[in-house]
Amino acid sequence: MTTPAWRQALNKSLDSNKHLKYSTFFQIATTRPDGRPANRTVAFRGFMDKTDRLTFTTDTRTQKTKDLNHKDWAEACWYFPDSREQYRLLGHLTLIGKDSSDKELSQERLKAWSECSETNRKWFSGPNPGKPKAETSDADHQDINVRSNEDPPVDSFALAVLDITEVDYVDLLKNVRDRHEPQSSGWNKIPVNP
Amino acid sequence: MTTPAWRQALNKSLDSNKHLKYSTFFQIATTRPDGRPANRTVAFRGFMDKTDRLTFTTDTRTQKTKDLNHKDWAEACWYFPDSREQYRLLGHLTLIGKDSSDKELSQERLKAWSECSETNRKWFSGPNPGKPKAETSDADHQDINVRSNEDPPVDSFALAVLDITEVDYVDLLKNVRDRHEPQSSGWNKIPVNP
Repeated sequence: MTTPAWRQALNKSLDSNKHLKYSTFFQIATTRPDGRPANRTVAFRGFMDKTDRLTFTTDTRTQKTKDLNHKDWAEACWYFPDSREQYRLLGHLTLIGKDSSDKELSQERLKAWSECSETNRKWFSGPNPGKPKAETSDADHQDINVRSNEDPPVDSFALAVLDITEVDYVDLLKNVRDRHEPQSSGWNKIPVNP
Repeated sequence: MTTPAWRQALNKSLDSNKHLKYSTFFQIATTRPDGRPANRTVAFRGFMDKTDRLTFTTDTRTQKTKDLNHKDWAEACWYFPDSREQYRLLGHLTLIGKDSSDKELSQERLKAWSECSETNRKWFSGPNPGKPKAETSDADHQDINVRSNEDPPVDSFALAVLDITEVDYVDLLKNVRDRHEPQSSGWNKIPVNP
């Protein structure tokens, strides 16, 4: 597989910004069922082996699950303030949950769980995110004994997979902007005005 | 006017993170005319005098103008990586352009222009953002002589005003999350699960 130009650039940005603890954080926008946009910060968990499918982990109890059931499009906005580069990655976002029928993706979900930090795993065991505390009962907690990465994931643990269909890259230092669009033979890079 | 609790928190976050050059940057999501989400980074330009209306500047030639003509909702996601705080600010987003009939808002637009840096003003004078370079002609440039902040703004300069209707605040260090909703008598703070 040839590495697309946008991914080569992104790899370079990640490498040159890796000393910054926030460099793996980006914002992912979805569309709510009522058509209004939603936006939140997530942490990059790498690309799936031998693919350009971008991944992060999420809790299926959050609002974004409802958004994606309604409309599976998402746009990631990833800004590197030191190098003043921005990547906008538009694509279809799929959540791989416990009931996924895809064996390969289910394996990826297990792998992502095994790579989670203890803090992260504890997070997923907490009560229903976004639910008012006053309405939260014991039933909203998941198996809080799931602590080891040898245990199976908690039910609400999902791997989010973004299949990217368009990339908008801006380098404000070099005053360069490119739009990347997939073609049958690979990706097409179109220089546009910043 | 009483300062809402979410804004008191935001003021505090801005103050404690002001040594970080990226602390005034956030991501703003809109919904495209076809229903897909869009997401990009913008720079905070303060709240309008004596209001809780959040502002930033933008170029009306960008895609977000089309998005907002179709649906005027937007969600800002503002993450402070050092203090691990996130603000999600949902609201109606209005662009105040050269043809605005609102005198007060037009004045705010002129004020925002006068406060722009020279770099920023030059930016607005450049050719149509996002247009392929190959299709760009002289007609896509604005008056490139507009350099002084005593000159009137270029035509495509707009002040974006976000009228916030819901705030979701998370502090990952303190493990606290609150949803803020407006009520007739002010704002209601609802503690929710992080």
